Amino acid sequence: MDWGTELWDQCDIIDKHTQSGLDLVEKYVKFVKERTEIEQNYAKQLRNLTKKYSPKRGSKEEQECRFSNHQAFLDILNEMNDYAGQRELIAENMMINICIELTKYLQELKQERKMHLSEAKKAQQSLEGTYKQLDNSKKRFEREWREAEKAAQYAEKTDQDLNATKADVEKAKQQAHMRTHIAEECKNDYAAQLQKYNKEQNQFYFTDMPLTFNRLQDMDERRSKKLAQGYILFADTERHVMPIIGKCLEGITRAGTNVNERNDSMILIEQHKSGFERPGDLEFEDYSQGINRASSDSSLGTPKGPLELLGKNKNKTFRLFNKKSKR
Amino acid sequence: MDWGTELWDQCDIIDKHTQSGLDLVEKYVKFVKERTEIEQNYAKQLRNLTKKYSPKRGSKEEQECRFSNHQAFLDILNEMNDYAGQRELIAENMMINICIELTKYLQELKQERKMHLSEAKKAQQSLEGTYKQLDNSKKRFEREWREAEKAAQYAEKTDQDLNATKADVEKAKQQAHMRTHIAEECKNDYAAQLQKYNKEQNQFYFTDMPLTFNRLQDMDERRSKKLAQGYILFADTERHVMPIIGKCLEGITRAGTNVNERNDSMILIEQHKSGFERPGDLEFEDYSQGINRASSDSSLGTPKGPLELLGKNKNKTFRLFNKKSKR
Repeated sequence: MDWGTELWDQCDIIDKHTQSGLDLVEKYVKFVKERTEIEQNYAKQLRNLTKKYSPKRGSKEEQECRFSNHQAFLDILNEMNDYAGQRELIAENMMINICIELTKYLQELKQERKMHLSEAKKAQQSLEGTYKQLDNSKKRFEREWREAEKAAQYAEKTDQDLNATKADVEKAKQQAHMRTHIAEECKNDYAAQLQKYNKEQNQFYFTDMPLTFNRLQDMDERRSKKLAQGYILFADTERHVMPIIGKCLEGITRAGTNVNERNDSMILIEQHKSGFERPGDLEFEDYSQGINRASSDSSLGTPKGPLELLGKNKNKTFRLFNKKSKR
Repeated sequence: MDWGTELWDQCDIIDKHTQSGLDLVEKYVKFVKERTEIEQNYAKQLRNLTKKYSPKRGSKEEQECRFSNHQAFLDILNEMNDYAGQRELIAENMMINICIELTKYLQELKQERKMHLSEAKKAQQSLEGTYKQLDNSKKRFEREWREAEKAAQYAEKTDQDLNATKADVEKAKQQAHMRTHIAEECKNDYAAQLQKYNKEQNQFYFTDMPLTFNRLQDMDERRSKKLAQGYILFADTERHVMPIIGKCLEGITRAGTNVNERNDSMILIEQHKSGFERPGDLEFEDYSQGINRASSDSSLGTPKGPLELLGKNKNKTFRLFNKKSKR
């Protein structure tokens, strides 16, 4: 079962079917191209997102990264950036392996199809030409035979005519003989043309067209096979980056599990403890025992305790707010 | 090691640090929200893409789907649509499980932090008030003691004065005695205030503030833990749909492998073969043998062969182009 034998009289159908096949490839390439644009756009948005949330060099946020819960967020941003890179890779690989590849192949197939259809047309035009020759030749034979019959009838009529001269009869007979001779030649020519046409028609229907149609079938099947590979590549391209995307997700999970809230609290202590003792009891200053009143400035005098810094504390707060960093 | 004991004088630092922690949660929620918007947009674009390429009902494209290579493209569009649905699911789950959840938690933490800091401030203001009382009390003691000393000096001076009357001496002594008594009372008051202050100061530095600071530490650690869970959910949400996305990819691969180009060729035959025999040889029409010339119309006469339809073929093509569908 092939197109050459089964669809020998369905050239229009084969024409349309193979065109529709090429249209599908073109459509699929366009579809994949638009998918890559969506993918590129998606990746770009993810990249912009990570950039927007990444701390600037030397910023407060960057300093906060000594705390694991801040550092983890940065780790997530980094993983998202890698993730975006994988989406870009999908777009690039789809473009190279599907769009460019199939477009190139499509051009070749278009050329090949055009060639086969043009060959079919040429063969058909040639057969039509031969048919016209045959038709002419047949018409001439019919015409000449009619003339020969007329000439024969005239010769017979002349022969029977009592008023006709012998010369008249001889002339009519010669004329009839000549006409018959011409008609015989036309008959032979018609027979030869018929033989030529039948040979060509046979070649056309049983050899040339089947070959061309089978070549178109083969081309269409190759196209279909290549397109199917393109379909599979569509999934493979994404499947290819799945393990790396999985690693990005693992990285995010690891960032989450790396958060050590207890340790973050300890880091705050390490970085900010002043080391001072908490204030002890204030001592009783007994003026009645004559303590140094010279330094007394109608305030609490000269406390030796931890409230030493109190007077200097402009915001009137207690030692809860030590502006000094750790000593 | 805890903030209450180690950072007793770093209230500013604890204030800033806990604020920075809440800011990070807020920032992360915003980040995830923007990610869900990107994801929704990506899903929408994928949906539009599949819609754009899906054939309309009853269209030529839909009819082409009897061919496996056309059907496979539709299968891929369907898988892409499912794929888009999974991306939407990621967006929705991130919104519900991370954004909404953390925002709610954040409001609670903000309230809690505010309460702790306000308690700290109140305790501090109370201690400051007590300190002021102590200061006043101490100043009064100092002042009164000076007055008492002055009165004693005056009484001594009067006692030594030869011109002073006994009454003057007695009055000065009584005055000195009274002043000393008042000064003693002020001293007792100062002592009592000092005791009260020291008690309150001790309560403040060794009980109340450590408790408040430790509660803030505990709050900050709970926040950090919850945020870390939110980080892990970010990966889990996407990981959750990975198997279904994998199934979409499998579906696309299956669509590709389902393409049967040989069978597609057979379907074209099934649907379009006319069943006619290819034209055989044209017969010789021998006018010289007196065949029926009545029906002869100066053309090829009445061929009994397969060229029967030729005359009706308006586009002058041969039987390669049979407009009829299969009989």
